[in-house]
Amino acid sequence: MRDYTICAVSTPPGIGGIAVIRVSGTDAITICDRLFMSRSVPLNDGDGLSSKRLMDLSANVVVNKHICRDGEVLDNALVTVFRSPHSFTGEDTVEISCHGSLYIQQTIMQWLIEGGAYQALPGEFTQRAFLNGKMDLSQAEAVADLIASTSFGMHQLAMNQMRGGFSGELKYLRLQLLEIVSLIELELDFGDHEELEFANREELRTLAVQIRNQIGDLINSFAVGNVIKNGIPVAIIGKPNVGKSTLLNALLNEERSIVTDIPGTTRDTIEETLYIQGQLFRFIDTAGLRDHTDDHIEALGIQRSFEKAERASIILYLFDLTQEDPDDIIPTSHWLQKFNKPILMVGTKNDIACRSPIHTSGNVQAIHVSCKIPADIERVKNYIVKLTNIQKVTDTGVIVTNVRHYEALYRAYESIKRVIEGIDQNLSGDLLAQDLRECLHYLGEITGGEIATTEVLDNIFSKFCIGK
Amino acid sequence: MRDYTICAVSTPPGIGGIAVIRVSGTDAITICDRLFMSRSVPLNDGDGLSSKRLMDLSANVVVNKHICRDGEVLDNALVTVFRSPHSFTGEDTVEISCHGSLYIQQTIMQWLIEGGAYQALPGEFTQRAFLNGKMDLSQAEAVADLIASTSFGMHQLAMNQMRGGFSGELKYLRLQLLEIVSLIELELDFGDHEELEFANREELRTLAVQIRNQIGDLINSFAVGNVIKNGIPVAIIGKPNVGKSTLLNALLNEERSIVTDIPGTTRDTIEETLYIQGQLFRFIDTAGLRDHTDDHIEALGIQRSFEKAERASIILYLFDLTQEDPDDIIPTSHWLQKFNKPILMVGTKNDIACRSPIHTSGNVQAIHVSCKIPADIERVKNYIVKLTNIQKVTDTGVIVTNVRHYEALYRAYESIKRVIEGIDQNLSGDLLAQDLRECLHYLGEITGGEIATTEVLDNIFSKFCIGK
Repeated sequence: MRDYTICAVSTPPGIGGIAVIRVSGTDAITICDRLFMSRSVPLNDGDGLSSKRLMDLSANVVVNKHICRDGEVLDNALVTVFRSPHSFTGEDTVEISCHGSLYIQQTIMQWLIEGGAYQALPGEFTQRAFLNGKMDLSQAEAVADLIASTSFGMHQLAMNQMRGGFSGELKYLRLQLLEIVSLIELELDFGDHEELEFANREELRTLAVQIRNQIGDLINSFAVGNVIKNGIPVAIIGKPNVGKSTLLNALLNEERSIVTDIPGTTRDTIEETLYIQGQLFRFIDTAGLRDHTDDHIEALGIQRSFEKAERASIILYLFDLTQEDPDDIIPTSHWLQKFNKPILMVGTKNDIACRSPIHTSGNVQAIHVSCKIPADIERVKNYIVKLTNIQKVTDTGVIVTNVRHYEALYRAYESIKRVIEGIDQNLSGDLLAQDLRECLHYLGEITGGEIATTEVLDNIFSKFCIGK
Repeated sequence: MRDYTICAVSTPPGIGGIAVIRVSGTDAITICDRLFMSRSVPLNDGDGLSSKRLMDLSANVVVNKHICRDGEVLDNALVTVFRSPHSFTGEDTVEISCHGSLYIQQTIMQWLIEGGAYQALPGEFTQRAFLNGKMDLSQAEAVADLIASTSFGMHQLAMNQMRGGFSGELKYLRLQLLEIVSLIELELDFGDHEELEFANREELRTLAVQIRNQIGDLINSFAVGNVIKNGIPVAIIGKPNVGKSTLLNALLNEERSIVTDIPGTTRDTIEETLYIQGQLFRFIDTAGLRDHTDDHIEALGIQRSFEKAERASIILYLFDLTQEDPDDIIPTSHWLQKFNKPILMVGTKNDIACRSPIHTSGNVQAIHVSCKIPADIERVKNYIVKLTNIQKVTDTGVIVTNVRHYEALYRAYESIKRVIEGIDQNLSGDLLAQDLRECLHYLGEITGGEIATTEVLDNIFSKFCIGK
């Protein structure tokens, strides 16, 4: 299956100053040599490297070469040879850094394919790195996450996973499980002597509970991972016409939500994403909170406001300083505490009202702002970042972001739960061993030690971009 | 002016497997070293290169390095140092090949700028290559043309120019001019002896005429260069409803021109571009040719048909085989010869008519086709390519494609013309020398030997992409 040589443009699609084409596989060097063989031009540093064939060059040295055919020069490119196993894929690899014209990129690809290489499938380079043992499956998956990262948080998670943080945690869990399994299987070998119990059931249970809790922590971290990947939800709530859309627009610095003076204009909740200090936030502008409303649609909107506030990580409660005395708002602040999450009470229109902030406590903070003053908007942003408190949900700081991993962990959790129940019900060693083996299997699926089917691999790597 | 260090993402904008960031200037190595200094991780081949500082590394060797700050790893990148003068710009240059995520690309750029580098302006790397004498101005301009090339023809022109084909021709012209100038200026040094004539006027004139003709050839080549750059114009003409739009659509293989059964549907000429065998063609679908028409707009359309046919390089004359006997078309073929350019007479709807092609001669060829048969469309394409005859307008095959060069050549032509007139009018040597110097100046503008103003340079390089 991996016997053929692959090639792809690894840089983003389109026109640029330069583009990089990668060729990997047994014949990479031979195929690429044909691009240069017909003519060679001395490199400007005069060391004669550019007239050597690639197969005679040292690895990891950049040489200047003319790509040509039938005496016609296609391009002047920088070429580097990486030799197996010291390359990303673990195979012989050639990187061609050419001028970034579409014509040149396409022609080089065409010549490589005519020379015997195959256009790489999405993620095929990384898949080969995995198959050649350069990284495990969760690390390979992190490569795609790393490339897709657009925020500090997403990037840190992917980088930690790529560098083996998650793999290490799983390895540790598997080692603990293997310890239990081996003890139990030792018992089974002496199956005839029923009284024999190498594995003290009480100790086994303690260990199994520990493992269950660790897997549980990883499962719980998925919610946080999701928030980092998709943005921390911030709900903006308050009575009608207190300036919710105005604040959202000021935060986004552009007009997206309709701002009018008629109370209750924002019927549907509007979601907008914004990076603040490298972290992605998802702002939910909701319909105004009102005690009584004759408008049925409006009522539905308010219903949704509360639901969104329930599901948000942070709540901004807005009130109009020209309409309400800050002191009158104190009962509301007590009422808001029931949400049990960080709440920022924002008194708006302070350019007209000029009030001092109220005193708040617990999970509630308060500021007074005018959306017309950029410095006030910056203060709101700083508060939002301060209120964001992504807890370390696991001791090692590993956070699960991948649905495939979540699913495998969930199944592993179910298995280890059955082990604990089995111990409690005094089940026999062979039944316990079966569930333990299952738990090991699911954890192994994550790093790929237990996966063999091409289907699963193809599914994972099809989400990659071509050239990686 | 060139004392600062510049940096830019040189690969196409966007997300990809990898991206390449280039840093060039006196401090390139020092600034980049700070990206890696805080931590170093051994390269997998264990040669210890990755723990060395960049300034201690050999040039042109690729090393694997962790980009990090405050102990946090941003990325694992391949880094190459190129030392002055053996780099594209001629300055110390570092190339960082990182993962192609936007976050990583932006963060590296941010760190480089914080470290003292400046975001490069469009074309600034190439501008430095020019200023450092790595290439002349026409070669530098060819770099941008090379990157913008989308066809074989455009690419060949740009590559020839980048490799110095045009520069060589200009150098030769300038040498010839300098020869004349030096002879005349020698005369001027002996100004008192009026009878002295080192430069035989007859020989001078012959040489000047030669130079004028060579410059004239270059000027004429601009039309061809333009055709290659913008597409070879092909006019599709014929009576109403013979299937002009149908053929155009079949060539383009998609619906763009409105096809109906009402004669005279295509009022405005439609231009479509298509690559056939690597060459760009511009197809002009025109209103049907009719002898008499009551419709004024239609009449205007026909007028335009003839104009387009005049300006096209190739004419496709279509006629309907179900309406006209091929033999009846022979007078038309004689009439078409007056256009004095390659003409293909295409009998259409041959799936219904099934006629054998007529005999043609001279610049006229004929085929019968059905637009419903893909093989017939391929035949039309092959004929078009066969009829395309881009002449070698200059002996050396140099073709001018740049308006700035055209303008300079035009002015040089005017100057050398004045020299010839001056010789004919027996003007004094100092007047001839002035025009000769002017001619030299304009030719020098092309390669940049005579240009100093930042304004002209900025204007040239502003058309480049960033990172080149």
